[in-house]
Amino acid sequence: MTIDSPIEAASSTASTEREGEPVTTANERTVVDNASVKALLERGRTLATPVLRAAVDRLAKPMDTVAAYHFGWIDAAGRPSEGDGGKAVRPALALLSAEAAGASPETGLPGAVAVELVHNFSLLHDDLMDGDEQRRHRDTVWKVHGPAQAILVGDALFALANEILLELGTAEAGRATRRLTTATRKLIDGQAQDISYEHRERVTVEECLEMEGNKTGALLACAVSIGAVLGGADDRTADALESYGYHLGLAFQAVDDLLGIWGDPDATGKQTWSDLRQRKKSLPVVAALAAEGPASRRLAELMTADAKKSQAEFEDFDEAEFAARAALIEQAGGREWTSQEAQRQHTTAIAALDTVDMPGHVRDQLVALADFVVVRQR
Amino acid sequence: MTIDSPIEAASSTASTEREGEPVTTANERTVVDNASVKALLERGRTLATPVLRAAVDRLAKPMDTVAAYHFGWIDAAGRPSEGDGGKAVRPALALLSAEAAGASPETGLPGAVAVELVHNFSLLHDDLMDGDEQRRHRDTVWKVHGPAQAILVGDALFALANEILLELGTAEAGRATRRLTTATRKLIDGQAQDISYEHRERVTVEECLEMEGNKTGALLACAVSIGAVLGGADDRTADALESYGYHLGLAFQAVDDLLGIWGDPDATGKQTWSDLRQRKKSLPVVAALAAEGPASRRLAELMTADAKKSQAEFEDFDEAEFAARAALIEQAGGREWTSQEAQRQHTTAIAALDTVDMPGHVRDQLVALADFVVVRQR
Repeated sequence: MTIDSPIEAASSTASTEREGEPVTTANERTVVDNASVKALLERGRTLATPVLRAAVDRLAKPMDTVAAYHFGWIDAAGRPSEGDGGKAVRPALALLSAEAAGASPETGLPGAVAVELVHNFSLLHDDLMDGDEQRRHRDTVWKVHGPAQAILVGDALFALANEILLELGTAEAGRATRRLTTATRKLIDGQAQDISYEHRERVTVEECLEMEGNKTGALLACAVSIGAVLGGADDRTADALESYGYHLGLAFQAVDDLLGIWGDPDATGKQTWSDLRQRKKSLPVVAALAAEGPASRRLAELMTADAKKSQAEFEDFDEAEFAARAALIEQAGGREWTSQEAQRQHTTAIAALDTVDMPGHVRDQLVALADFVVVRQR
Repeated sequence: MTIDSPIEAASSTASTEREGEPVTTANERTVVDNASVKALLERGRTLATPVLRAAVDRLAKPMDTVAAYHFGWIDAAGRPSEGDGGKAVRPALALLSAEAAGASPETGLPGAVAVELVHNFSLLHDDLMDGDEQRRHRDTVWKVHGPAQAILVGDALFALANEILLELGTAEAGRATRRLTTATRKLIDGQAQDISYEHRERVTVEECLEMEGNKTGALLACAVSIGAVLGGADDRTADALESYGYHLGLAFQAVDDLLGIWGDPDATGKQTWSDLRQRKKSLPVVAALAAEGPASRRLAELMTADAKKSQAEFEDFDEAEFAARAALIEQAGGREWTSQEAQRQHTTAIAALDTVDMPGHVRDQLVALADFVVVRQR
């Protein structure tokens, strides 16, 4: 099947004059059933949140409070809040995953919660390692509660993830934990690569894709197979679902990389030119540097000079400096290539579904979720 | 059975004039078979190290190098080194644990390596959280490779521990991983308590024991049950072995707390008065504060004043200031109480062994290890 990608539609009219506009424009050609995806994400959130809160309540003080702040359930002063707990794509996938194996969505619930715990463990630690001060429109945990709590609560969420699964006490839970552990190791490998790439002048497109596959693909792959494993699916089925999730993750990350440069700060909750300010060697950047031509060469010159600046000096740049770099990335084809890459990964993800025998409505929802991932604005 | 504890022997002659002398003096009444314990620890190290090194080699660059530095296999410049990898009590216990269940020591090997990985995960993170600059006579990982690598490699070792066990793919491995996860959660709870106690003026003896049970008891308990679980032992046997390990851990920690104040820096690799410099509310301190009398009151006054000082101000203290505090702790009975507590925990640990049917030579070695733990100088 082919999908008329809103990303391709948007990027085919790419111009350097569109900063601040949405990266991806949902237009009349969009086949994404937004209501269905919204319901799916809502179901994941509704079923997983109480179990997640009960899990977090097991933590010793003050880790329970710190975790509750991270998840947006309370504010920095400890008052109940209706925070933004994120898109909750992973829990939605884990419940669908159980249904793909013919089990009830509830069968996937411990998997949904475990994956969400690992995801948030990595956010807590990555924000600290990367020095990121904002997440989901709020100060990050290390900013509010200090580095030690960010480390400690991250560790606790990771341990809790395994505990939630293993206390099921079944052979399926053992297999599910093993897949989760493999995914977590890849997640950590990806963060290690991400950090080491920051100190290198050049990163290849292949290295960037490998890093993003580890950092984003592996855990989405686990989310979309873990419910099936808990529902008794065999390894072949679980592997095919993982393949869908892995490529979905790469599509997700390609869109994230577009939003990191051209996203609307009001929608993403990040600063303008966020990834450029952090000198991230994301897909649009490495693709632009890999291209031929004057824009690519000029970008490389600027980045070599930028690398010699201190982070403070760099962040003090005028907005126009970042805009100039974004324009060069676009002129060198980095934006267009990344849009097409999101589409390619989307296509590969959908193709993986064709190797699994699953109820038609489950397949439709997995397709709708993949469509949503590539058109989202945040 | 009763053991003439070298600790009691030493502390019964306690005087304020002995700073710098060994805390515990092995004398002719010592029943510890040092050669047997040495052989046991050596066996654990010899069998576990190659498996541990192979596990660490799985890590993505540069995490493999950072971990190798932490374990003492290379120096800060990357050259091979014969570093001090620690006492390796846990691997020795895990191998004995398998033998306690009638299995070969090798059966416990994945458990030995998994426990050692979790132990070192916690060292990497705790050293960073606590700001400790030295471990095993060398700069800590965060000092040499930076905080991000200490976080990341800690995370990786934790994940690797689960991976090593779960890839065995057996029901026993699932049960072993569940016990390891429970122990790891307690370890993290203990570190959370330790950190929160630093900010409190008073900590009770019970709170201190609970914290030390979590921080030290839980993982030793896991070490001494995990081999048996992998060898097919039932839960009752595993629980009894855990009980031995838990109380062994508390005895171990009581001795550690004595060494943290009165230990010989050349043997421990820590500064003189190490725990006092860090204002740790360790067992001798909380026991002294809980006592009646002028020494306890004077100590409390000094500590209230100390609490108002900055860490830098405090570390600049003259040696005599720390010596005065150590003398007050001893006069208030904190040193004596902690020595006796080590002995009480030792007795409880040995009693737990009586509920398990195991080969006589295995029991003898577990007793010898417990004896060793309370007479060690480092």
